[in-house]
Amino acid sequence: MSRPVDKAETLVEALPYIRRFWGRTIVVKYGGHALAGANESPALDLFAQDVVLMRSVGMRPVVVHGGGPQISDLMARLGKTTEFRGGLRVTDAETVEIARMVLVGQVNPSIVSAINRHGSLAIGVSGEDARLIRARPADPELGFVGDVEAIDPTVLLRLLDQEMIPVVATIGVDEAGQAYNINADVVAGAIAEALGAEKLVYLTDVEGLRRDLGDPSSLIRQTTSSELQRLLDDGTLAGGMIPKISSCVRAVTHGVSRAHILDGRIPHVLLLELFTDEGIGTMVTKG
Amino acid sequence: MSRPVDKAETLVEALPYIRRFWGRTIVVKYGGHALAGANESPALDLFAQDVVLMRSVGMRPVVVHGGGPQISDLMARLGKTTEFRGGLRVTDAETVEIARMVLVGQVNPSIVSAINRHGSLAIGVSGEDARLIRARPADPELGFVGDVEAIDPTVLLRLLDQEMIPVVATIGVDEAGQAYNINADVVAGAIAEALGAEKLVYLTDVEGLRRDLGDPSSLIRQTTSSELQRLLDDGTLAGGMIPKISSCVRAVTHGVSRAHILDGRIPHVLLLELFTDEGIGTMVTKG
Amino acid sequence: MSRPVDKAETLVEALPYIRRFWGRTIVVKYGGHALAGANESPALDLFAQDVVLMRSVGMRPVVVHGGGPQISDLMARLGKTTEFRGGLRVTDAETVEIARMVLVGQVNPSIVSAINRHGSLAIGVSGEDARLIRARPADPELGFVGDVEAIDPTVLLRLLDQEMIPVVATIGVDEAGQAYNINADVVAGAIAEALGAEKLVYLTDVEGLRRDLGDPSSLIRQTTSSELQRLLDDGTLAGGMIPKISSCVRAVTHGVSRAHILDGRIPHVLLLELFTDEGIGTMVTKG
Amino acid sequence: MSRPVDKAETLVEALPYIRRFWGRTIVVKYGGHALAGANESPALDLFAQDVVLMRSVGMRPVVVHGGGPQISDLMARLGKTTEFRGGLRVTDAETVEIARMVLVGQVNPSIVSAINRHGSLAIGVSGEDARLIRARPADPELGFVGDVEAIDPTVLLRLLDQEMIPVVATIGVDEAGQAYNINADVVAGAIAEALGAEKLVYLTDVEGLRRDLGDPSSLIRQTTSSELQRLLDDGTLAGGMIPKISSCVRAVTHGVSRAHILDGRIPHVLLLELFTDEGIGTMVTKG
Amino acid sequence: MSRPVDKAETLVEALPYIRRFWGRTIVVKYGGHALAGANESPALDLFAQDVVLMRSVGMRPVVVHGGGPQISDLMARLGKTTEFRGGLRVTDAETVEIARMVLVGQVNPSIVSAINRHGSLAIGVSGEDARLIRARPADPELGFVGDVEAIDPTVLLRLLDQEMIPVVATIGVDEAGQAYNINADVVAGAIAEALGAEKLVYLTDVEGLRRDLGDPSSLIRQTTSSELQRLLDDGTLAGGMIPKISSCVRAVTHGVSRAHILDGRIPHVLLLELFTDEGIGTMVTKG
Amino acid sequence: MSRPVDKAETLVEALPYIRRFWGRTIVVKYGGHALAGANESPALDLFAQDVVLMRSVGMRPVVVHGGGPQISDLMARLGKTTEFRGGLRVTDAETVEIARMVLVGQVNPSIVSAINRHGSLAIGVSGEDARLIRARPADPELGFVGDVEAIDPTVLLRLLDQEMIPVVATIGVDEAGQAYNINADVVAGAIAEALGAEKLVYLTDVEGLRRDLGDPSSLIRQTTSSELQRLLDDGTLAGGMIPKISSCVRAVTHGVSRAHILDGRIPHVLLLELFTDEGIGTMVTKG
Repeated sequence: MSRPVDKAETLVEALPYIRRFWGRTIVVKYGGHALAGANESPALDLFAQDVVLMRSVGMRPVVVHGGGPQISDLMARLGKTTEFRGGLRVTDAETVEIARMVLVGQVNPSIVSAINRHGSLAIGVSGEDARLIRARPADPELGFVGDVEAIDPTVLLRLLDQEMIPVVATIGVDEAGQAYNINADVVAGAIAEALGAEKLVYLTDVEGLRRDLGDPSSLIRQTTSSELQRLLDDGTLAGGMIPKISSCVRAVTHGVSRAHILDGRIPHVLLLELFTDEGIGTMVTKG
Repeated sequence: MSRPVDKAETLVEALPYIRRFWGRTIVVKYGGHALAGANESPALDLFAQDVVLMRSVGMRPVVVHGGGPQISDLMARLGKTTEFRGGLRVTDAETVEIARMVLVGQVNPSIVSAINRHGSLAIGVSGEDARLIRARPADPELGFVGDVEAIDPTVLLRLLDQEMIPVVATIGVDEAGQAYNINADVVAGAIAEALGAEKLVYLTDVEGLRRDLGDPSSLIRQTTSSELQRLLDDGTLAGGMIPKISSCVRAVTHGVSRAHILDGRIPHVLLLELFTDEGIGTMVTKG
Repeated sequence: MSRPVDKAETLVEALPYIRRFWGRTIVVKYGGHALAGANESPALDLFAQDVVLMRSVGMRPVVVHGGGPQISDLMARLGKTTEFRGGLRVTDAETVEIARMVLVGQVNPSIVSAINRHGSLAIGVSGEDARLIRARPADPELGFVGDVEAIDPTVLLRLLDQEMIPVVATIGVDEAGQAYNINADVVAGAIAEALGAEKLVYLTDVEGLRRDLGDPSSLIRQTTSSELQRLLDDGTLAGGMIPKISSCVRAVTHGVSRAHILDGRIPHVLLLELFTDEGIGTMVTKG
Repeated sequence: MSRPVDKAETLVEALPYIRRFWGRTIVVKYGGHALAGANESPALDLFAQDVVLMRSVGMRPVVVHGGGPQISDLMARLGKTTEFRGGLRVTDAETVEIARMVLVGQVNPSIVSAINRHGSLAIGVSGEDARLIRARPADPELGFVGDVEAIDPTVLLRLLDQEMIPVVATIGVDEAGQAYNINADVVAGAIAEALGAEKLVYLTDVEGLRRDLGDPSSLIRQTTSSELQRLLDDGTLAGGMIPKISSCVRAVTHGVSRAHILDGRIPHVLLLELFTDEGIGTMVTKG
Repeated sequence: MSRPVDKAETLVEALPYIRRFWGRTIVVKYGGHALAGANESPALDLFAQDVVLMRSVGMRPVVVHGGGPQISDLMARLGKTTEFRGGLRVTDAETVEIARMVLVGQVNPSIVSAINRHGSLAIGVSGEDARLIRARPADPELGFVGDVEAIDPTVLLRLLDQEMIPVVATIGVDEAGQAYNINADVVAGAIAEALGAEKLVYLTDVEGLRRDLGDPSSLIRQTTSSELQRLLDDGTLAGGMIPKISSCVRAVTHGVSRAHILDGRIPHVLLLELFTDEGIGTMVTKG
Repeated sequence: MSRPVDKAETLVEALPYIRRFWGRTIVVKYGGHALAGANESPALDLFAQDVVLMRSVGMRPVVVHGGGPQISDLMARLGKTTEFRGGLRVTDAETVEIARMVLVGQVNPSIVSAINRHGSLAIGVSGEDARLIRARPADPELGFVGDVEAIDPTVLLRLLDQEMIPVVATIGVDEAGQAYNINADVVAGAIAEALGAEKLVYLTDVEGLRRDLGDPSSLIRQTTSSELQRLLDDGTLAGGMIPKISSCVRAVTHGVSRAHILDGRIPHVLLLELFTDEGIGTMVTKG
């Protein structure tokens, strides 16, 4: 616990950041992994506090989430086996309905409810609401796995203008009204771009981006979109982080000022990144 | 199909109703029974057309829905037996989570998506969003079955002001963030009251209210809140219609101009009730 | 009379048109011929219903009218002979004052009053009000017969924004405040252009435009501005329809989406054209 | 012509009046007598300048006019004899149509046009527009002579809010859409009351109100509503001034601060009354 | 310096206070003593940071200041002796002009400038601006020493609505435009009352209010208006703190939620009081 | 004193000017010389009346003032000698603080108070408020004499939008918060330019600009920016008028319509220039 003088200094340290980010939109991808387990987890509550604080000092946070583990869990309980092809879940009509139930009806309300313990602030939004996320099939072999065709940010802008916190479940919809399951990392980036966000933040269960996956000392503190693209192109960076990394590259080259990959296991990591001089995780800028 | 002159007459017949209901809020309870079966039913599409037409001529429709059969269905698929006590489902923690998945993640998006095939109009809202529906336990023996403690219509008013169509899933939330399953008929009435709605409309799978359940000729075309209360008190009206009937009585004595019980099996029954001189179903007024 | 199911279908048929025309401006030229006779004619009342319905579903109708027969009638009663030169009335100072009395003080209030039997919707506007119609002499030999020099649509825009229905009498005014009588067909086109109207509609006492005036089977259902211009240039189209036709050509080449020449003798012809799939009269598009 | 120093003093003398009347509504009854003769009279132009100056310094002037002499004139030209009963014109259907033509189509545009030579400021409004003046028969024997049943000032308030100058022709309308001729002095008072006007001003062709009609030295400079009522009751005041006097009494007892009877023959009498310390005509206050 | 985890905890500790005080007005009396000496003091800069942080998280701070020592200093430099009567400065015409120069032209711009080093936030306001502080003579023997007659908070409300920080110099003005010097403690209380402030805060050079002036252990942490009034009445509290104490009593009994007497010598004492759970100085509530 | 008819004519003469200048910004430089002497001078009161009248008829006046003589006076009283170099006062830290006290704390409140005797209209603003006037050193040898680096007119626009009259003291401020004394003539021009003012008016103690300083008959009634620039370049115009003349040239070539140099000794000279046909002083237009 801090002495009063330290508390005051922490608040004063936050002042320039509060002023800089006032009225700016921050898109935060909250990992489904972080949610595994109970409805009310302490980690979720810390996250909720951070988001509420962001809103309270004038930022416009938007939360985007997936829920892979929870989908697998319900599939298993329903005795349905999941087939993966190239790391992507083959998604038939029943599977997309299960995914929708889990994302829109289980994960999303858990996050909304955790935030709303601090006030009537959050509202759950799926990509079908006001046709927020327009999707198209990613690959005929995968069924109802979608790519982002377009984001119509109107509904998010309206909710943000009313000082609400939108929490987005990443179900997309095509012209005919068919639902699709879409990678949440990719949706987060597309939404940040469509909103002209100041920041795109990925909360993960790793410390940050590593040049060498197995070597903690290779953590990249700060990098640029062109450097990252180079590492993607030459195969240095690979695996499950690729959607996040590609989205970071795309976002900062399309108007988002900064993208961050943070370790969601650190308590209040969002506050530390946003309001203090500490350097945390990996920061990506345009260049 | 009509001749041109009949078409014109139908439009002109609608004129005084369009003028009368311009800017007025209409709360429509859409029955879960009507949804049983596929995601895209022809009946759901007709209903969606009606709601979109209401919005297009300046009304402010709010859709409220339950989903009992769909909940039972998922319970069965998950091998969970449902216990009913006094006609109400005993709802443990797992059951309320299943109910939430079904209502918020399955039924609600189906309705939203059907409406949005006509434009980016509908947005799904659960009672946890912006703490719309505050709940308290209905009965300790029933677990997480809730009564309506209060409706905070702020989020609905904002969405209506932005010319959107809110579709409400009837999950409530208590101060601590615990979710409850609540009777959708009751929620529809409470929302109509909180919004000062012009009309509260129940779409059912019966022709209307009958004085004698078994006698089609005993259909009540028009009645008053006090008459209905008397029939409730002396036991004439009983069974599954009671929540609807009580809600009608309560709503019209708390500021809602008219309540209607309509036969949702009639195509475009909403349009016929709202825009034509036809007399349909049962109408309840204050008195 | 329609059966309920047909009524519902008619309303649903209207839905896409209602959505398409919401907020759009429709300029309707109402013929003086249609008004000949009594103050309260059944035809005028049908017309009033159509205009009110247009307003009720969110369109912005503007009515423009002339009144040649009524002017001739008052001239005759005052013992003043009308001299025509090249089909145009020679208009001395006394004649323009008579024209103004008739258009502004007789025809205009009749239309306003017919509309206002359905609500406080219509307001009469002459071209002198807020200097809506700036005029210049058409031809020195004709006296105070004017051409449109400019339309200042400010007053119309304000009234439309307040959800009123402007009814325009086609008296123009020059810089010095002198009044002019102007062809109402031409004014209707100029106003449609100045307002960026969606549609310009002429209600006439013929079925539509005919390629051969004497041959009903030569009715033109759909044509383009360039085709019409060609027919004007080679003399195929001539006579009293020329101001209407030229105005249609000019309007659709200056931003008005569509122009229509309709048979005002068909009851509710406006509704049929606007809200049903029926094809009626002649439609002109750009091309 | 004034010296510069005198000009400056006049402007400074006007300052407190400009400040006091800023944003206040002033209803001016302009006499039909003043209009007799040509369309463009010098007196009308002086009046127009005064009204424009009032608007320019932030007042909200409303002009109300009649036109008895002009109606009689057109009646005569049409060979129609006017029957008067108790000083009031017996008004059959044809007569009310003639009155409407004259007031709405001749007198009103003359005033509008005179004002608009200084800008696009004035707009003519008849009592039928947006159903401004609701009328009922004054006396079955008089035909379509109306009493004011109600004033709906909505359209005037909207025009005033848009900084326009409404010029009102005193034709009223009943529920069925029938037009009535109404005494303009009475309408002016009723409009002043409905608008909560600061002042009601009658421009007449006399110097002011006299205690003894034949004695110029009996001019009443200042009086109260109760004093005037007493003079009406005991018959001291009688004749053609009665509608003006009754309207003054009624207006100042229903919220209008002051009523004035001024000599419209004095050039710029409105400016002198409003912006200088001169005492002019008769002023009536509540008491 | 704090560890990251402590920083995060400090920010989270601030969250409920930030939410509670969002949009609330806080009137802070800044002591002239604190300003003695240079234009740019470190203490003034810390104070400026606190005020800017308050504004940044949505509060509406108003700064009120006096400047007794600075007035005495300029008097001395001008060779003018100050006469005190009953602890109050006898203020002739020259003295009030000197006081005005110092307060409005020296102390006020110093504070404004210190705040504006963090942005274009502060604007100096004297009681003569828009006649904010209406004064009357306190005592004929004291000359131009004034009492507060009325506060017209209009100008402050406008500046606050534009997210500016008003800094008020306590010069009052009477109807004739004469300036008065007024006790700044009293003005701060009157402004807090007129603005319906949430808090009134006095920054002093003592630790807080003591029951026994000489005994540090008699510090009053929390008290009520009635308790304070009793201590004033029985003479327990006396001396220079009386205007502050009376103002606290008056403010909390006239709508201000809380009044505080804080030790301005503690760095960032405002932040500690407003955003942390620390108990500091003396707090006064109604009761 | 004028006769009524002359008064009316003066008001009517003012009408076109009132209309032309409605909503336009007029920057008036009020000379410190005019203020020498007492707080309440008759000349200051006449000036205040003029400014209030301008505001009352819809103009947006901004007053800018200096105070050289008053600064010299306080310097003398404090026994501080003023050193001038090239006509400019060498300004050390103490001197700029004295200048600030005089301009912000003495001259500014005198003008504010004189205007506010007519209502709560004026508010004093210094260049430090909301960092209105950004300054940089004019010349290292002169100390804290500043040049205008930039004008941020935000605070003035806000006050003008609220129908207040800003009175600007010409103290500038640099990035670090250091105050500078700046030539008021130059500031007036820069503010007129930044506000896109209609007019820039210098009130002086001469009749206007003379081609030959010693020859009254060489008064220049009307000239252009290029003509003036030529006279500056060839040395015809020199001396203390140069900052005014350069500012006039710069202002009219940067969007200000007209600049005027008027004789402030003529009573109500502003009114005469603005509202009458009299030709007064020197007018500068672009060309």
